[in-house]
Amino acid sequence: MIRPAELIQRKRDGEELSDDELAELILGYARGEVPDYQMAAFCMAVFFRGLSERETYVLTDAMIRSGETIDLGARLGRKVVDKHSTGGVGDKTSLSVAPIVAACGVPLGKMSGRGLGHTGGTLDKLESIPGYRTELTLDEFVAQVRDVGVAIIGQTGDLVPADKRLYALRDVTATVDQPSLIAASIMSKKIAGGAQAIVLDVKVGDGAFMKTLEGARELAETMISLGRQAGREVVCLLTDMDQPLGAAVGNALEVREALDTVRGHGPSDFTEVVLDACGKLLALSDLGIDEEEGRRRAERAVADGSAEFVWRRWIEAQGGTSDESALPVAPVIRAVVAPKAGYVRELGAIRIGNAAVHLGAGRRTKEDAVDHAVGIVCRAKRGTRVDAGDELAVVHARTEAQADEAVRDVLAAYELAPEPPEERPVLLEVVG
Amino acid sequence: MIRPAELIQRKRDGEELSDDELAELILGYARGEVPDYQMAAFCMAVFFRGLSERETYVLTDAMIRSGETIDLGARLGRKVVDKHSTGGVGDKTSLSVAPIVAACGVPLGKMSGRGLGHTGGTLDKLESIPGYRTELTLDEFVAQVRDVGVAIIGQTGDLVPADKRLYALRDVTATVDQPSLIAASIMSKKIAGGAQAIVLDVKVGDGAFMKTLEGARELAETMISLGRQAGREVVCLLTDMDQPLGAAVGNALEVREALDTVRGHGPSDFTEVVLDACGKLLALSDLGIDEEEGRRRAERAVADGSAEFVWRRWIEAQGGTSDESALPVAPVIRAVVAPKAGYVRELGAIRIGNAAVHLGAGRRTKEDAVDHAVGIVCRAKRGTRVDAGDELAVVHARTEAQADEAVRDVLAAYELAPEPPEERPVLLEVVG
Repeated sequence: MIRPAELIQRKRDGEELSDDELAELILGYARGEVPDYQMAAFCMAVFFRGLSERETYVLTDAMIRSGETIDLGARLGRKVVDKHSTGGVGDKTSLSVAPIVAACGVPLGKMSGRGLGHTGGTLDKLESIPGYRTELTLDEFVAQVRDVGVAIIGQTGDLVPADKRLYALRDVTATVDQPSLIAASIMSKKIAGGAQAIVLDVKVGDGAFMKTLEGARELAETMISLGRQAGREVVCLLTDMDQPLGAAVGNALEVREALDTVRGHGPSDFTEVVLDACGKLLALSDLGIDEEEGRRRAERAVADGSAEFVWRRWIEAQGGTSDESALPVAPVIRAVVAPKAGYVRELGAIRIGNAAVHLGAGRRTKEDAVDHAVGIVCRAKRGTRVDAGDELAVVHARTEAQADEAVRDVLAAYELAPEPPEERPVLLEVVG
Repeated sequence: MIRPAELIQRKRDGEELSDDELAELILGYARGEVPDYQMAAFCMAVFFRGLSERETYVLTDAMIRSGETIDLGARLGRKVVDKHSTGGVGDKTSLSVAPIVAACGVPLGKMSGRGLGHTGGTLDKLESIPGYRTELTLDEFVAQVRDVGVAIIGQTGDLVPADKRLYALRDVTATVDQPSLIAASIMSKKIAGGAQAIVLDVKVGDGAFMKTLEGARELAETMISLGRQAGREVVCLLTDMDQPLGAAVGNALEVREALDTVRGHGPSDFTEVVLDACGKLLALSDLGIDEEEGRRRAERAVADGSAEFVWRRWIEAQGGTSDESALPVAPVIRAVVAPKAGYVRELGAIRIGNAAVHLGAGRRTKEDAVDHAVGIVCRAKRGTRVDAGDELAVVHARTEAQADEAVRDVLAAYELAPEPPEERPVLLEVVG
């Protein structure tokens, strides 16, 4: 029998745990035999000491073994691709990517999470659509992926229950942003969910868990290695999260922007990330095409309206209304104007993310309700030239007082300078 | 309202918390509003980041404010002195010191703890005496200190409940051995218990929480500073814990040795620590004498039998039998003999402590029962010259199998060398 206190102490002192010890700790936790307080201390020790490559693999494997796994490929009779983002501000990529690749003939069934902290969650965004059901049975999910090409639902409880419990614990004990724990959490879910090829979008910058390119690279390499050990193909995009992605931050606002992008009218940085991800996914699929051809087909699906057609079928199949005018609208709309002329030198993603949380677009605790209507639309992004009085952003708020506060917060996120900043592409690097 | 996850994160990232933040965290924990898992993560973050002098003071103060305090001095009409050890192997100092100083006219009422890990607890030792009651009401406690001069009981639940809860948590989350947390735990109890002058015995070495003299000095200085800020006089002895203190390790065995020492027949190293502590306590008392005179009086109380007389009155007042032959005796007694001639160069305290725990003398978990009869008597200490076949130690065990294992463990704790080791005094330093 393992003694959790002893394992915590050895990890705390920088030792590597044996496979059996670590697996028993995680499976014991999933069974409820190891209490939350010991796992919290263990995660904090891991935060300071890290996990070896081997330990990270064993952790991932134990999380997968804690629950059911789905062989989605066998059930669909197709090679299954999936994408996942490590989370950022304004990141609605999955919403646009799924219908575009489906329109190109590659089905995409995703299990997604809710937003926590300053980053939004795909499920919260989708729930701003009146009627949208995030809970389908596994059979409904598989049938919809087969018939419509797209389904996005919440994680089912039978899949990776150890991660479900561990993630909730890490969230309230300041142990989320540790590369091995992040990698194991993401990859255990993707592997257990049956994806055979995975495109990962690792966000880098002040609005992401990974603040530096080095840290993001390390995380990417860890996830690629975990995927390969499980026989999965993995590609990682490292993308900029120093400023929000696209313009919209906030649930219904982001759904609108995702749909605009599916129609070809999205913000350029966001469109770039979406088409990149689509190209990579199609190249990994069973279509037998390369990335360039994948990207061309994605652009065509956007241009010819087939992607928008799949969007509508998907939303309606999950009970939602595809009529955009049914999306909730905030009662107070306020412009944020430039106090002086200049170039936008910085647009702090974490400040915008936090301002959106204060407006009610995100959760401070797991019990908080989300206000789907509110948020911020950043019209001016890094490099934009503005005159004094020009609109920088628009705040969508529930009350006048919250609007006032958000206007101040948003202004503080913008840094204007006389010279344009160095150009920084949204796609920083590809790993794997 | 404080957000514990945010405070954990800031401590994790090396920030200093404000007085209000830290106090609310501790008081919230004592009230049951902050859950164990958040406090466990916080303690592990403190393990890596430490607490500032100010934070340590605020923590101590909050723990005191979490419960009742006793003005023992006012209730006795005397200046109250107390002693405390940070814990080691074979440390039965309080058992001998209390009746000796009481015989010199200075009452000593102590609230003590139970043993955990490889270190024994005063209460467990006393409970090896048939009939001894460790739970007295506060009124009974005060009356006995007044009438008999000595009372040693368990911590009452009304005193420093935050520490009670926190200590139990730290014990199972590998966060015990952190200087600020140790200092706050000890000093909050001493201050809340009403001691006006305190002699602290900080153990240093492989069998102690503090492995190095530097660490012990830092802990001593922290505790002295905490005491002074609360208006208490504090003196710290730093004493050796590289080898067990005295010869006996195990509850009833240690009670016998403590009584032998009160009668003047104790091991020399242990007698030295006891008389040092007595001299310091008497010098801090309201007798108005210096340390040298205090030590002389302590020696006299031992020599003239008055200390033994107080011992018997004390044990009987608390319901115990003062007849030593009533102490439990282990059924299997086995000698450990020297495999070769030489000098004892090392006698590893932690190995002896763990061997005693394996015999059943200590607890592995809080729920374990203690076997009061078993233990180890180390006849040969560091520097002793032995011939092959000479007795090094005696194992007192419950079963033959446990005796076999303990003999092996004890042998492994002894290191014999052809040359005598450098002499090392048991009293290493005095601080304060």
